[in-house]
Amino acid sequence: MSLTTTAPSAEGDAFASPFVKTLARAIRAHDTFGQWDNKSDQEILADFIVDAEKRRQIPIIANPDRKVLWRVEVFYAAVGLAIERETGLIAAPMLALSHEGYGRVVLIAGRLVAVRRQLRDVHRFGFPSLAALAAEGDKLVAEGAAMIRTHAAIADL
Amino acid sequence: MSLTTTAPSAEGDAFASPFVKTLARAIRAHDTFGQWDNKSDQEILADFIVDAEKRRQIPIIANPDRKVLWRVEVFYAAVGLAIERETGLIAAPMLALSHEGYGRVVLIAGRLVAVRRQLRDVHRFGFPSLAALAAEGDKLVAEGAAMIRTHAAIADL
Repeated sequence: MSLTTTAPSAEGDAFASPFVKTLARAIRAHDTFGQWDNKSDQEILADFIVDAEKRRQIPIIANPDRKVLWRVEVFYAAVGLAIERETGLIAAPMLALSHEGYGRVVLIAGRLVAVRRQLRDVHRFGFPSLAALAAEGDKLVAEGAAMIRTHAAIADL
Repeated sequence: MSLTTTAPSAEGDAFASPFVKTLARAIRAHDTFGQWDNKSDQEILADFIVDAEKRRQIPIIANPDRKVLWRVEVFYAAVGLAIERETGLIAAPMLALSHEGYGRVVLIAGRLVAVRRQLRDVHRFGFPSLAALAAEGDKLVAEGAAMIRTHAAIADL
Protein backbone atom coordinates (compact mmCIF):
# COMPACT_ATOMS: atom_id res chain seq x y z
CA MET A 1 0.00 0.00 0.00
CA SER A 2 1.30 3.41 -0.89
CA LEU A 3 0.29 4.76 2.53
CA THR A 4 2.66 2.56 4.43
CA THR A 5 5.55 2.90 2.02
CA THR A 6 5.74 6.67 2.51
CA ALA A 7 5.85 6.82 6.31
CA PRO A 8 5.18 3.44 7.87
CA SER A 9 5.56 4.23 11.55
CA ALA A 10 3.79 7.61 11.59
CA GLU A 11 0.90 6.18 9.57
CA GLY A 12 0.74 3.15 11.85
CA ASP A 13 0.39 5.47 14.83
CA ALA A 14 -2.32 7.42 13.06
CA PHE A 15 -4.51 4.30 12.84
CA ALA A 16 -4.44 4.15 16.63
CA SER A 17 -5.74 7.76 16.88
CA PRO A 18 -9.22 7.90 18.45
CA PHE A 19 -10.35 10.35 15.77
CA VAL A 20 -9.30 8.04 12.95
CA LYS A 21 -11.15 5.15 14.60
CA THR A 22 -14.25 7.35 14.94
CA LEU A 23 -14.05 8.32 11.28
CA ALA A 24 -13.68 4.69 10.18
CA ARG A 25 -16.70 3.76 12.31
CA ALA A 26 -18.73 6.66 10.90
CA ILE A 27 -17.94 5.45 7.39
CA ARG A 28 -18.78 1.84 8.21
CA ALA A 29 -22.13 2.98 9.65
CA HIS A 30 -23.16 3.70 6.04
CA ASP A 31 -22.25 0.20 4.93
CA THR A 32 -25.73 -1.24 5.40
CA PHE A 33 -25.02 -4.42 3.48
CA GLY A 34 -21.67 -5.24 5.06
CA GLN A 35 -19.82 -4.92 1.76
CA TRP A 36 -16.79 -3.38 3.55
CA ASP A 37 -16.64 -5.92 6.35
CA ASN A 38 -13.51 -7.43 4.88
CA LYS A 39 -11.84 -4.08 4.20
CA SER A 40 -9.28 -2.67 6.61
CA ASP A 41 -9.58 0.86 8.03
CA GLN A 42 -6.62 1.71 5.80
CA GLU A 43 -8.55 0.71 2.68
CA ILE A 44 -11.69 2.50 3.83
CA LEU A 45 -9.80 5.72 4.49
CA ALA A 46 -7.60 5.60 1.38
CA ASP A 47 -9.67 8.18 -0.52
CA PHE A 48 -9.15 10.76 2.24
CA ILE A 49 -5.43 10.78 1.50
CA VAL A 50 -4.72 13.27 -1.26
CA ASP A 51 -1.01 13.95 -1.64
CA ALA A 52 0.52 16.76 -3.70
CA GLU A 53 0.66 14.74 -6.88
CA LYS A 54 -2.92 13.47 -6.55
CA ARG A 55 -4.08 17.06 -5.83
CA ARG A 56 -2.58 18.26 -9.09
CA GLN A 57 -4.50 15.60 -10.98
CA ILE A 58 -7.89 16.68 -9.64
CA PRO A 59 -9.42 19.44 -11.75
CA ILE A 60 -11.22 22.17 -9.81
CA ILE A 61 -13.58 23.04 -12.62
CA ALA A 62 -17.26 22.10 -12.50
CA ASN A 63 -18.96 20.91 -9.32
CA PRO A 64 -17.23 18.69 -6.78
CA ASP A 65 -18.46 15.15 -7.32
CA ARG A 66 -20.85 13.37 -4.96
CA LYS A 67 -18.17 11.11 -3.55
CA VAL A 68 -15.95 13.97 -2.38
CA LEU A 69 -18.96 15.79 -0.89
CA TRP A 70 -19.81 12.62 0.97
CA ARG A 71 -16.24 12.45 2.34
CA VAL A 72 -16.46 16.07 3.55
CA GLU A 73 -19.77 15.28 5.25
CA VAL A 74 -18.61 12.11 6.95
CA PHE A 75 -15.34 13.75 8.09
CA TYR A 76 -17.20 16.56 9.90
CA ALA A 77 -19.83 14.11 11.16
CA ALA A 78 -16.97 12.17 12.77
CA VAL A 79 -15.68 15.41 14.34
CA GLY A 80 -19.17 15.93 15.78
CA LEU A 81 -19.33 12.37 17.14
CA ALA A 82 -15.93 12.73 18.79
CA ILE A 83 -17.00 16.06 20.35
CA GLU A 84 -20.16 14.41 21.66
CA ARG A 85 -18.10 11.62 23.22
CA GLU A 86 -15.91 14.20 24.97
CA THR A 87 -18.60 16.62 26.13
CA GLY A 88 -21.84 14.65 26.19
CA LEU A 89 -23.44 17.26 23.91
CA ILE A 90 -24.37 16.63 20.30
CA ALA A 91 -22.44 18.80 17.85
CA ALA A 92 -24.40 18.64 14.61
CA PRO A 93 -22.58 19.47 11.38
CA MET A 94 -24.04 21.84 8.79
CA LEU A 95 -22.36 22.20 5.46
CA ALA A 96 -23.20 24.88 2.92
CA LEU A 97 -21.33 24.76 -0.35
CA SER A 98 -21.53 26.89 -3.42
CA HIS A 99 -21.40 25.12 -6.74
CA GLU A 100 -17.78 26.15 -7.20
CA GLY A 101 -16.45 24.16 -4.26
CA TYR A 102 -16.35 27.08 -1.80
CA GLY A 103 -18.36 27.15 1.34
CA ARG A 104 -18.50 26.82 5.05
CA VAL A 105 -19.02 24.16 7.61
CA VAL A 106 -20.15 24.62 11.21
CA LEU A 107 -20.71 22.23 14.08
CA ILE A 108 -23.57 23.41 16.24
CA ALA A 109 -24.19 22.43 19.87
CA GLY A 110 -27.41 23.94 21.21
CA ARG A 111 -27.13 27.63 20.29
CA LEU A 112 -23.33 27.57 20.08
CA VAL A 113 -21.20 27.35 16.94
CA ALA A 114 -18.59 25.03 18.43
CA VAL A 115 -16.52 24.76 15.24
CA ARG A 116 -16.49 26.84 12.07
CA ARG A 117 -14.35 26.58 8.97
CA GLN A 118 -14.29 28.15 5.55
CA LEU A 119 -13.91 25.54 2.84
CA ARG A 120 -12.33 25.99 -0.55
CA ASP A 121 -11.24 23.67 -3.32
CA VAL A 122 -13.62 21.07 -1.96
CA HIS A 123 -12.91 19.14 -5.17
CA ARG A 124 -9.53 18.33 -3.64
CA PHE A 125 -10.70 17.62 -0.09
CA GLY A 126 -8.21 15.33 1.61
CA PHE A 127 -5.04 15.21 3.64
CA PRO A 128 -1.40 14.64 2.66
CA SER A 129 -1.19 11.67 5.02
CA LEU A 130 -3.28 9.79 7.53
CA ALA A 131 -1.21 11.40 10.28
CA ALA A 132 -2.24 14.82 8.91
CA LEU A 133 -5.89 13.72 8.83
CA ALA A 134 -5.65 12.56 12.45
CA ALA A 135 -3.98 15.81 13.50
CA GLU A 136 -6.64 17.97 11.82
CA GLY A 137 -9.46 15.86 13.28
CA ASP A 138 -7.95 16.01 16.77
CA LYS A 139 -7.50 19.80 16.45
CA LEU A 140 -11.14 20.36 15.43
CA VAL A 141 -12.41 18.08 18.22
CA ALA A 142 -10.25 19.83 20.83
CA GLU A 143 -11.37 23.26 19.58
CA GLY A 144 -15.05 22.30 19.61
CA ALA A 145 -14.92 20.62 23.00
CA ALA A 146 -13.11 23.62 24.51
CA MET A 147 -15.71 26.03 23.07
CA ILE A 148 -18.51 23.91 24.53
CA ARG A 149 -16.87 23.78 27.96
CA THR A 150 -16.26 27.54 27.96
CA HIS A 151 -19.82 28.38 26.88
CA ALA A 152 -21.68 25.44 28.42
CA ALA A 153 -24.94 27.31 29.01
CA ILE A 154 -25.26 28.35 25.34
CA ALA A 155 -24.24 24.90 24.12
CA ASP A 156 -27.05 23.38 26.15
CA LEU A 157 -29.77 25.83 25.01
CA MET B 1 -54.66 41.09 -8.35
CA SER B 2 -55.74 38.13 -6.30
CA LEU B 3 -53.72 39.39 -3.34
CA THR B 4 -55.75 42.53 -2.90
CA THR B 5 -59.13 40.97 -3.58
CA THR B 6 -58.80 38.53 -0.66
CA ALA B 7 -57.90 41.00 2.10
CA PRO B 8 -57.25 44.44 0.72
CA SER B 9 -56.57 46.41 3.87
CA ALA B 10 -54.49 43.78 5.71
CA GLU B 11 -52.41 43.14 2.60
CA GLY B 12 -51.97 46.87 2.06
CA ASP B 13 -50.65 47.20 5.61
CA ALA B 14 -48.27 44.31 5.02
CA PHE B 15 -46.55 46.21 2.20
CA ALA B 16 -45.67 48.89 4.74
CA SER B 17 -43.99 46.30 7.01
CA PRO B 18 -40.24 46.93 7.32
CA PHE B 19 -39.57 43.22 6.84
CA VAL B 20 -41.52 43.09 3.59
CA LYS B 21 -39.60 46.12 2.31
CA THR B 22 -36.31 44.45 3.26
CA LEU B 23 -37.33 41.26 1.45
CA ALA B 24 -38.32 43.19 -1.68
CA ARG B 25 -34.96 45.02 -1.60
CA ALA B 26 -33.07 41.73 -1.11
CA ILE B 27 -34.84 40.30 -4.16
CA ARG B 28 -34.17 43.41 -6.26
CA ALA B 29 -30.48 43.22 -5.33
CA HIS B 30 -30.32 40.12 -7.57
CA ASP B 31 -31.84 42.01 -10.50
CA THR B 32 -28.50 43.00 -12.02
CA PHE B 33 -29.98 44.09 -15.33
CA GLY B 34 -32.90 46.09 -13.97
CA GLN B 35 -35.49 43.82 -15.54
CA TRP B 36 -37.80 44.23 -12.53
CA ASP B 37 -37.49 48.00 -12.26
CA ASN B 38 -41.05 48.40 -13.54
CA LYS B 39 -42.47 45.69 -11.32
CA SER B 40 -44.19 46.56 -8.05
CA ASP B 41 -43.18 44.93 -4.75
CA GLN B 42 -46.50 43.11 -4.96
CA GLU B 43 -45.55 41.51 -8.27
CA ILE B 44 -42.06 40.66 -7.06
CA LEU B 45 -43.39 38.97 -3.92
CA ALA B 46 -46.30 37.16 -5.61
CA ASP B 47 -44.51 33.78 -5.70
CA PHE B 48 -44.06 33.84 -1.90
CA ILE B 49 -47.83 33.70 -1.47
CA VAL B 50 -48.97 30.09 -1.52
CA ASP B 51 -52.56 29.70 -0.36
CA ALA B 52 -54.27 26.42 0.50
CA GLU B 53 -55.41 25.75 -3.05
CA LYS B 54 -52.00 26.52 -4.55
CA ARG B 55 -50.35 24.29 -1.91
CA ARG B 56 -52.47 21.36 -2.96
CA GLN B 57 -51.38 21.80 -6.56
CA ILE B 58 -47.66 21.58 -5.75
CA PRO B 59 -46.44 17.98 -5.71
CA ILE B 60 -43.91 17.14 -2.99
CA ILE B 61 -42.29 14.34 -4.92
CA ALA B 62 -38.79 14.77 -6.41
CA ASN B 63 -36.47 17.62 -5.44
CA PRO B 64 -37.72 21.14 -4.76
CA ASP B 65 -37.03 23.22 -7.84
CA ARG B 66 -34.32 25.88 -8.02
CA LYS B 67 -36.78 28.75 -7.91
CA VAL B 68 -38.34 27.68 -4.62
CA LEU B 69 -34.89 27.07 -3.11
CA TRP B 70 -33.91 30.55 -4.16
CA ARG B 71 -37.03 31.97 -2.45
CA VAL B 72 -36.16 30.14 0.78
CA GLU B 73 -32.62 31.54 0.59
CA VAL B 74 -33.63 35.11 -0.11
CA PHE B 75 -36.32 35.02 2.62
CA TYR B 76 -33.81 34.02 5.31
CA ALA B 77 -31.21 36.40 3.86
CA ALA B 78 -33.77 39.19 4.36
CA VAL B 79 -34.28 38.04 7.97
CA GLY B 80 -30.50 38.28 8.43
CA LEU B 81 -30.38 41.77 6.92
CA ALA B 82 -33.21 42.98 9.15
CA ILE B 83 -31.47 41.52 12.23
CA GLU B 84 -28.26 43.29 11.22
CA ARG B 85 -30.12 46.58 10.92
CA GLU B 86 -31.54 46.12 14.42
CA THR B 87 -28.42 44.89 16.19
CA GLY B 88 -25.47 46.03 14.09
CA LEU B 89 -24.24 42.43 13.90
CA ILE B 90 -24.29 40.32 10.75
CA ALA B 91 -26.55 37.29 11.02
CA ALA B 92 -25.50 34.99 8.18
CA PRO B 93 -27.97 32.38 6.98
CA MET B 94 -26.97 28.76 6.43
CA LEU B 95 -29.38 26.39 4.81
CA ALA B 96 -28.93 22.63 4.66
CA LEU B 97 -31.57 20.68 2.79
CA SER B 98 -31.93 17.01 2.07
CA HIS B 99 -33.08 16.05 -1.38
CA GLU B 100 -36.57 15.36 -0.10
CA GLY B 101 -37.29 18.95 0.91
CA TYR B 102 -36.51 18.51 4.59
CA GLY B 103 -33.74 20.38 6.33
CA ARG B 104 -32.73 23.15 8.61
CA VAL B 105 -31.85 26.78 8.44
CA VAL B 106 -29.84 28.77 10.95
CA LEU B 107 -28.82 32.41 11.18
CA ILE B 108 -25.40 32.74 12.76
CA ALA B 109 -24.01 35.86 14.44
CA GLY B 110 -20.43 35.32 15.58
CA ARG B 111 -20.54 32.06 17.53
CA LEU B 112 -24.27 32.34 18.29
CA VAL B 113 -27.12 30.58 16.51
CA ALA B 114 -29.50 33.55 16.61
CA VAL B 115 -32.32 31.77 14.74
CA ARG B 116 -32.92 28.10 13.97
CA ARG B 117 -35.76 26.40 12.18
CA GLN B 118 -36.52 22.94 10.91
CA LEU B 119 -37.84 23.03 7.36
CA ARG B 120 -40.15 20.56 5.72
CA ASP B 121 -42.14 20.46 2.50
CA VAL B 122 -39.77 23.04 1.09
CA HIS B 123 -41.45 22.34 -2.27
CA ARG B 124 -44.39 24.30 -0.92
CA PHE B 125 -42.46 27.12 0.77
CA GLY B 126 -44.65 30.18 1.00
CA PHE B 127 -47.22 31.98 3.10
CA PRO B 128 -51.02 32.07 2.96
CA SER B 129 -50.93 35.87 2.63
CA LEU B 130 -48.49 38.75 2.56
CA ALA B 131 -49.64 39.63 6.07
CA ALA B 132 -48.64 36.11 7.19
CA LEU B 133 -45.26 36.50 5.45
CA ALA B 134 -44.70 39.83 7.23
CA ALA B 135 -45.73 38.34 10.59
CA GLU B 136 -43.37 35.36 10.23
CA GLY B 137 -40.49 37.60 9.10
CA ASP B 138 -41.07 40.01 11.98
CA LYS B 139 -41.20 37.11 14.44
CA LEU B 140 -37.90 35.64 13.22
CA VAL B 141 -36.22 39.05 13.28
CA ALA B 142 -37.46 39.77 16.81
CA GLU B 143 -36.35 36.33 18.00
CA GLY B 144 -32.88 36.66 16.45
CA ALA B 145 -32.34 40.21 17.67
CA ALA B 146 -33.40 39.24 21.22
CA MET B 147 -31.02 36.24 21.21
CA ILE B 148 -28.17 38.50 20.07
CA ARG B 149 -28.90 41.10 22.75
CA THR B 150 -29.13 38.42 25.48
CA HIS B 151 -25.88 36.73 24.40
CA ALA B 152 -24.01 39.72 23.00
CA ALA B 153 -20.52 38.43 23.87
CA ILE B 154 -21.03 35.16 21.97
CA ALA B 155 -22.65 36.93 19.03
CA ASP B 156 -19.59 39.15 18.71
CA LEU B 157 -17.03 36.32 18.91
